[in-house]
Amino acid sequence: MAGEFELISKYFAKQKLERSDVELSQGDDCALLVSPPGTQIAVSTDSLVAGTHFLANANPKWVGHKALASNISDLSAMGAEPAWVSMAISLPEPDEKWLEGFCEGFFSLADAHNLQLIGGDTTRGPLSITLTIHGFVPEKQALLRSGAQVGDKVFVSGSLGDSHAGLEVILDNEKRLLPNASKLEKRHYCASSRASLGMLLRGKASSCIDISDGLISDIKHIMTRSNVGAELHCDKLPVSQELVEFCRGEQTAQNYALKSGEEYELCFTVPQHLIESVRQVAETESVQITEVGEITDSQTLKLFRNNKALQENVAGFDHFRS
Amino acid sequence: MAGEFELISKYFAKQKLERSDVELSQGDDCALLVSPPGTQIAVSTDSLVAGTHFLANANPKWVGHKALASNISDLSAMGAEPAWVSMAISLPEPDEKWLEGFCEGFFSLADAHNLQLIGGDTTRGPLSITLTIHGFVPEKQALLRSGAQVGDKVFVSGSLGDSHAGLEVILDNEKRLLPNASKLEKRHYCASSRASLGMLLRGKASSCIDISDGLISDIKHIMTRSNVGAELHCDKLPVSQELVEFCRGEQTAQNYALKSGEEYELCFTVPQHLIESVRQVAETESVQITEVGEITDSQTLKLFRNNKALQENVAGFDHFRS
Repeated sequence: MAGEFELISKYFAKQKLERSDVELSQGDDCALLVSPPGTQIAVSTDSLVAGTHFLANANPKWVGHKALASNISDLSAMGAEPAWVSMAISLPEPDEKWLEGFCEGFFSLADAHNLQLIGGDTTRGPLSITLTIHGFVPEKQALLRSGAQVGDKVFVSGSLGDSHAGLEVILDNEKRLLPNASKLEKRHYCASSRASLGMLLRGKASSCIDISDGLISDIKHIMTRSNVGAELHCDKLPVSQELVEFCRGEQTAQNYALKSGEEYELCFTVPQHLIESVRQVAETESVQITEVGEITDSQTLKLFRNNKALQENVAGFDHFRS
Repeated sequence: MAGEFELISKYFAKQKLERSDVELSQGDDCALLVSPPGTQIAVSTDSLVAGTHFLANANPKWVGHKALASNISDLSAMGAEPAWVSMAISLPEPDEKWLEGFCEGFFSLADAHNLQLIGGDTTRGPLSITLTIHGFVPEKQALLRSGAQVGDKVFVSGSLGDSHAGLEVILDNEKRLLPNASKLEKRHYCASSRASLGMLLRGKASSCIDISDGLISDIKHIMTRSNVGAELHCDKLPVSQELVEFCRGEQTAQNYALKSGEEYELCFTVPQHLIESVRQVAETESVQITEVGEITDSQTLKLFRNNKALQENVAGFDHFRS
């Protein structure tokens, strides 16, 4: 690796956070780590590729946030506590200004989650970032996709749809003229993190997934793994006022909410007797959660609006996604 | 992610190996893993980018081997036992034939090391592979770069230099006419793995590193972390007969050995009273090890040939690397 690139790696040695379970982080062939007894280690890997997941000219601070947020989201969906992350980054040129912004977005989110960068690799190549994130979850308490039962209610956190609207703004300059375009663009890159909510759902949610491909696609993963069906009520989908204005109407906004990917909100199922307890947890955390449907024994996904089954084909919505 | 890419991810669900410490591998938001009590987890991340680390038209089986071998090598250098690996791969197009070859090279090496693929991410983008590898090492027994002491002898495993010669063949068609060109090209991609040797060096080697940047660069990492100097005897560097023929002379071959990167052999230091024990271990494993120098208190690296200090500047050799 060229000397210039060795210099770059110093950017990633800047984090002040030092976890006691990290015996050795950067500077040797491997990091050395100790996981707490009685826990399982949850591990996930995600890549962000310029041109596929973000535009090369996007605000580097936002890219740093998004890269980590999408990985934290996978831990959140398992109810795991964030601990360690490793990063492989490839850059066409050692661009120090870009790196400074990227690190600012990355480390402010990492510090907020007590998440330590334990090492990685910096290479010359087309711009892309791959993170492998590690968290802890007490044995047998991980939130899986496979636990949903017929009769459980389907919930989502936050509001949905903003991320897709933001993506439209990024890809189509004409959409910049629509209401709240800049806010929605930022929402696309700087999603909320639901790690605390995920941890608090342990023992309460029967299944959980993060919304990365879009609600319709992601609830299908729960259906497949749990061997159940589901009903979703489109009119109940939580949408932001900004999105309603952008879409010039609530119904269109709710269509966005059905398909919008990279939301990093949680979709989870709750047995009826635990709903009250889950609502209390969400209130303590000041996280909005909304009941949007129910698990059924039909093996299919049915969409309703105002209690009427929709004629539209679910596959149509699915195909809709970018 | 497009449907075509979802199909691709099935290629990576093919491994039959199922480790008992993998509670959950692919198919949920995270893998769930348990590390053995009393051990530390060694973690390393490495990227291979087409155009930087391999040519896009390279034999995909060799690329699969090389991607994993370079990561296993980091575990070997710590004395860690391979356990789990996650993979992020980005491909310009879903090329099933390429993937088939890649998986053949990757999984045959993984299976040989009882190493389970625990998940990953498949995206559309310029061809690159990032692996994060996990291994175990008993507490306080990891081989670090920081333990070399004045008077320790410097050893290397295998022979050095073939990888650089292979790279020259890849980059310069005229070199295909030189003796052993094809063999050396394959050696560049399909390095040996030294995981067993690394594990057996626990408690014996005072420091260890894998040769990925070139012997001169890598021993400097040991010098820096251990706060010592070193002498290397160029005439003792182990080189293959194939390389000597390719270079038309032993001295040139030994110059290759000094600078050749991506060798994935180990460079390690041994206190004099443990040398016999280390030689026995290497013999049991049928791995060639060669004493090539000594740790000094000089803080500098000195090169010798036939016991005469070389006039050449070490930085010159360092600069030499591609």
